Amino acid sequence: MAGNTLGQAFRVTTWGESHGPALGVVIDGCPPGLPLTEADLRQALERRQSRGLPSATRRSEPDAARILSGVFEGCTTGAPISIVIPNSDTHPGDYDRLRDVYRPGHADITCQAKYGVRDHRGGGRSSGRETAARVAAGEVASRVLATAGVEVLAYTLALGGIAARVGRVTREEVLASPLACPCPSATDRMLRLLDEVVAAGDSVGGVVQIVARGCPAGLGEPVFEKLDAALASALMSLGTVKAVEVGLGLAAADLRGSQVNDAITPRGFASNRAGGILGGISNGDDVVLRAACKPIPSIALEQDTVDAQGRPARIRVGGRHDACVLPRLVPVCEAMVALVLADFLLRQRAIAATPNWPGNQWMDWRPGSS
Amino acid sequence: MAGNTLGQAFRVTTWGESHGPALGVVIDGCPPGLPLTEADLRQALERRQSRGLPSATRRSEPDAARILSGVFEGCTTGAPISIVIPNSDTHPGDYDRLRDVYRPGHADITCQAKYGVRDHRGGGRSSGRETAARVAAGEVASRVLATAGVEVLAYTLALGGIAARVGRVTREEVLASPLACPCPSATDRMLRLLDEVVAAGDSVGGVVQIVARGCPAGLGEPVFEKLDAALASALMSLGTVKAVEVGLGLAAADLRGSQVNDAITPRGFASNRAGGILGGISNGDDVVLRAACKPIPSIALEQDTVDAQGRPARIRVGGRHDACVLPRLVPVCEAMVALVLADFLLRQRAIAATPNWPGNQWMDWRPGSS
Amino acid sequence: MAGNTLGQAFRVTTWGESHGPALGVVIDGCPPGLPLTEADLRQALERRQSRGLPSATRRSEPDAARILSGVFEGCTTGAPISIVIPNSDTHPGDYDRLRDVYRPGHADITCQAKYGVRDHRGGGRSSGRETAARVAAGEVASRVLATAGVEVLAYTLALGGIAARVGRVTREEVLASPLACPCPSATDRMLRLLDEVVAAGDSVGGVVQIVARGCPAGLGEPVFEKLDAALASALMSLGTVKAVEVGLGLAAADLRGSQVNDAITPRGFASNRAGGILGGISNGDDVVLRAACKPIPSIALEQDTVDAQGRPARIRVGGRHDACVLPRLVPVCEAMVALVLADFLLRQRAIAATPNWPGNQWMDWRPGSS
Amino acid sequence: MAGNTLGQAFRVTTWGESHGPALGVVIDGCPPGLPLTEADLRQALERRQSRGLPSATRRSEPDAARILSGVFEGCTTGAPISIVIPNSDTHPGDYDRLRDVYRPGHADITCQAKYGVRDHRGGGRSSGRETAARVAAGEVASRVLATAGVEVLAYTLALGGIAARVGRVTREEVLASPLACPCPSATDRMLRLLDEVVAAGDSVGGVVQIVARGCPAGLGEPVFEKLDAALASALMSLGTVKAVEVGLGLAAADLRGSQVNDAITPRGFASNRAGGILGGISNGDDVVLRAACKPIPSIALEQDTVDAQGRPARIRVGGRHDACVLPRLVPVCEAMVALVLADFLLRQRAIAATPNWPGNQWMDWRPGSS
Repeated sequence: MAGNTLGQAFRVTTWGESHGPALGVVIDGCPPGLPLTEADLRQALERRQSRGLPSATRRSEPDAARILSGVFEGCTTGAPISIVIPNSDTHPGDYDRLRDVYRPGHADITCQAKYGVRDHRGGGRSSGRETAARVAAGEVASRVLATAGVEVLAYTLALGGIAARVGRVTREEVLASPLACPCPSATDRMLRLLDEVVAAGDSVGGVVQIVARGCPAGLGEPVFEKLDAALASALMSLGTVKAVEVGLGLAAADLRGSQVNDAITPRGFASNRAGGILGGISNGDDVVLRAACKPIPSIALEQDTVDAQGRPARIRVGGRHDACVLPRLVPVCEAMVALVLADFLLRQRAIAATPNWPGNQWMDWRPGSS
Repeated sequence: MAGNTLGQAFRVTTWGESHGPALGVVIDGCPPGLPLTEADLRQALERRQSRGLPSATRRSEPDAARILSGVFEGCTTGAPISIVIPNSDTHPGDYDRLRDVYRPGHADITCQAKYGVRDHRGGGRSSGRETAARVAAGEVASRVLATAGVEVLAYTLALGGIAARVGRVTREEVLASPLACPCPSATDRMLRLLDEVVAAGDSVGGVVQIVARGCPAGLGEPVFEKLDAALASALMSLGTVKAVEVGLGLAAADLRGSQVNDAITPRGFASNRAGGILGGISNGDDVVLRAACKPIPSIALEQDTVDAQGRPARIRVGGRHDACVLPRLVPVCEAMVALVLADFLLRQRAIAATPNWPGNQWMDWRPGSS
Repeated sequence: MAGNTLGQAFRVTTWGESHGPALGVVIDGCPPGLPLTEADLRQALERRQSRGLPSATRRSEPDAARILSGVFEGCTTGAPISIVIPNSDTHPGDYDRLRDVYRPGHADITCQAKYGVRDHRGGGRSSGRETAARVAAGEVASRVLATAGVEVLAYTLALGGIAARVGRVTREEVLASPLACPCPSATDRMLRLLDEVVAAGDSVGGVVQIVARGCPAGLGEPVFEKLDAALASALMSLGTVKAVEVGLGLAAADLRGSQVNDAITPRGFASNRAGGILGGISNGDDVVLRAACKPIPSIALEQDTVDAQGRPARIRVGGRHDACVLPRLVPVCEAMVALVLADFLLRQRAIAATPNWPGNQWMDWRPGSS
Repeated sequence: MAGNTLGQAFRVTTWGESHGPALGVVIDGCPPGLPLTEADLRQALERRQSRGLPSATRRSEPDAARILSGVFEGCTTGAPISIVIPNSDTHPGDYDRLRDVYRPGHADITCQAKYGVRDHRGGGRSSGRETAARVAAGEVASRVLATAGVEVLAYTLALGGIAARVGRVTREEVLASPLACPCPSATDRMLRLLDEVVAAGDSVGGVVQIVARGCPAGLGEPVFEKLDAALASALMSLGTVKAVEVGLGLAAADLRGSQVNDAITPRGFASNRAGGILGGISNGDDVVLRAACKPIPSIALEQDTVDAQGRPARIRVGGRHDACVLPRLVPVCEAMVALVLADFLLRQRAIAATPNWPGNQWMDWRPGSS
């Protein structure tokens, strides 16, 4: 019923409000014997931090995650892993004037409708800060994936209508861009657009592309828990995401079957229009997804709204906010995909470990990614 | 682990292969006291049938669903509802030549990789025929939704690149079109395109829009089980869907915050760019989604593939197939959205039924849908 | 929320009322490649039938289970297995007079309180007949267990206060007794007691012992899903069971630690007072459980009750009932234990299949059962 | 898959090892608007502390629980509640010599078998200390139950074979006894027995009885999630519990139906042999359970065991241990029952909140507890 848990075999529960004392995550079902340190988590969390861009939130915290359980002498034990990230740089007073007014585009009004009470400070549980816990969990998931040779890489594909030109992207290219965009010329144009958007007191959206490489064939559970269904849910569980595409995505709707089917050859699939998933099961090719993100709703422009009594009000959202969520969202999308893949990897192992399992060895080939 | 179940409070488990003796669904958690007959189910299933279009599959079955449990003297009892739909018009022999070859764009190859065995007859469990069980379950879900005044309506928004022009759509308009498209002039153009596609031995995709009206504010469970996350998963669990959009969807990525936020007024939201969901919780406005469907992969054109030994092969997929899945998919999308909403309605009731629950009565207003 | 599903990796959902058209089960998560036929199920269900005892119910049905999905060419495919068992010998009219009166010791009154409506015919969903679906599912679970060399055996340990003397019991000894009691002299005394109980219009309870042999060490998920917790729940989910014991069970409460701990030797545990489970995880020894069953509440003696309006009433429960449920309950207990063990076996495989998993090979020894 | 979560609507996940930095719990699904403070938790945890008995562990910690999320301005918000309890009084060095040897009766050997690695310090995750998190969660559950007038009370019914004589027990009687036993004369004899057991370097078991008063009829989800099944599982999930009884429990096995059925009268049930549950659904009477606990396995007497290499070894378990777990286990049993009842209360509300639900108002009477 309650919705703060993701996954079945690799099960993650996050908790914490934006301006409470801390936030965190409990990971249940992580296999034993995987190396994990607090330094690993810190490094992952740093990628979610602002990078000194003029367009970025001025909130900055070291995000010094602590591991409180489930790790012994540097390795996971199979017990639940509890990670706590203190909220050191909170200014809850900044939000006092939001106690009785609903910010447009935010969950303020729906949280009030659902729960009848809400923690109005910085969005409470609905704040983007909650994603820090996801990134920490994603780092653990990536250790599970590493046992199977799977790696997840995300990057900014478009921002405010400016599209990156990308081929096979490397992690270095992504890290080199302040906007996590592997295309240097697009990065330049995006930065100029952000300057303009900040000056206008506005915000802007974009598209994140996520690629999982080395993913073995056979992951995904038909019918309702298809791999793409679970991945779409995981990405759409980010408040900012309004559309998710797999492979060709929306473009497939306008095409013909002969333009969409991937031919199969003895050396693998001839193309990867499917995005690495057929019938909800990974096909051994790269898993390719895109998440379309709306602009951050916190803008400095004055907007119409109502107060808690339903009376008309005008609001300018101050506080410390990004003008574009994308550079910080990229590692979060990576984490979400890693969490789902780790869960399905463990789930598939339960089947595949059956003695004399008639697994088709022919599938050991790994088609080259398109 | 196993993936054939959807929902928590209203829980649906489907079973059955395309060419086995029957398929069906067990619905657990349906509240008692709701009227339900086999005739209701038959009527719902008829909408999923082909409608004599030249572009439609030639398989036609009466789909005479039987209710084997959970209904007593015309009403649900709270016990699990078991519905069985016989497969009367099976020609499994049609598929003999598919035993050892993988159809491009189908789950043949991934099912083989995952399970090591497969029922090759008509896609087995991966067949679109499985959705008949979803439609039957969706009909039951719609009874639950009716207790709260919620109605779900889906229609064809685009087909092969031809877009319908739509305002506030009525069910009658949808039923009047052989393509479930409420725009008569678009329907005409779509029908001409389908003739052309059939003649070319090809298939074509499209976009389904789904609108849930009367949805109360407060449905959806942050963080991972946001309403839009669950809806995206439900729609993406249809093999043909490659992208899901909520509200503005993909378009939001190119816009600014001031263009995307819905202003709030004492009479409700001034617009519905959010698609009725804020922070993963319904806001009382219409819930608006779109599912982009790829063309059916079964085409009469010759394609490259491999056989079970990994040797090159050529294949033309015969059998009885639609050239475009959309008209039949429309009621399926409706069912999927109804299943998710019924589940979240029951889940929210568990909270809202708490005595002295501080529910904000101000939210009783229902903003007019945009 | 809804409670008709058991298990996570091997997930079973039952449905059906005592006097509806049929009852059945959907099994989701069964690994592919296991042989399964309808004849296997029929044989398992026969053991749950009455055996012509004067103490037994006069309802007798062939219980011809049909497999409607998930099995192809004699083997499981990994798809959900749907099994339907028709209710051929129903006399719903026998129960007309129970429509407005509550039978003491039955779920009539609580179902009415919970659901506000009920199927009064033969207990509806609460009937013991529902266990036929569990036995069918248990037969499938036993196929999963066979892949790991695990076998479950249950028998009557006591009936109406008469205790069997048992050592290492064989399946043949159990099948040889009309009461599923491996002790011939106790069987004789139990049969005489049953004659007396039937003559008195009464019923009588007893104790079933269940032993799982060949169970590998490592099954069970701390903390809340300990193996013994799951087994206790599974047995207590039988309406007739009022107590569950593991190993020494209740007797342990009166003893000292030095009398209860099992010493460990290089050849295994020196005793099996723990019942094969330590800290909720199987220890490689026999898993030993006992379920204490109350007498069947349907008795021919007149009892005080109330009618639907809350007025005093007197009732004699006619119909076709057993005087003692034990012989028929023995295969049901076996099924319940098999269902839990199969689930935990698959769950453990998800962990143990991790490459380079630091599994302690020393545990390959299998301590002899005490 | 992973087993550290309990419940569906009121969902509790515990984490933490005995000698790690902290342990804790995340509670997801708690309704908003319930008052909760850290002082409430401290008071609940104090009852789980040793009470200066010579038989009690010498480990003593203030158990100053911190609430890190889900509570705002003194009330729950509907967001997950994270509670952290620091482990301040750890002496992990005490356990160094247990690194390579398995304590009889403990989970050392099975954890090693299951995970291949283990945190040997004080039992790690399997330590009784883990139950502190359960008690904290149980305190929150009791707030949910209070909204429906339900109260859970547990007490020591027997210890080392000494039985208490009890009628209708009050909380004051339980708190007055250092052994949580409401019978003063039995308490005296139990204390003398404990002196003797401590002197002998041994430990002793006992029986806890748990009564839930004010429980409304209708809680429990047939078939597999019957109320008694869930309660049995919850109690058996305590490492020390080896048997669970409901109502008459084991005694019912020796009796006749006429001696076990509770007659129904217009004023309620004439007796409560059923323990307040019929067909897995609460009947409005007191819910009555008993948990039989084995003696603590940590004893000062020398025992046979093996080391990590499988070689024979002798062990005396030092450290700081109770001679009898019962006084500390009583509040833990109370917590476990409260957790299950809170979950089922919320689950039932999802059904009962259906508009026009045909709830039988006749059940508003509350039969007097026997």
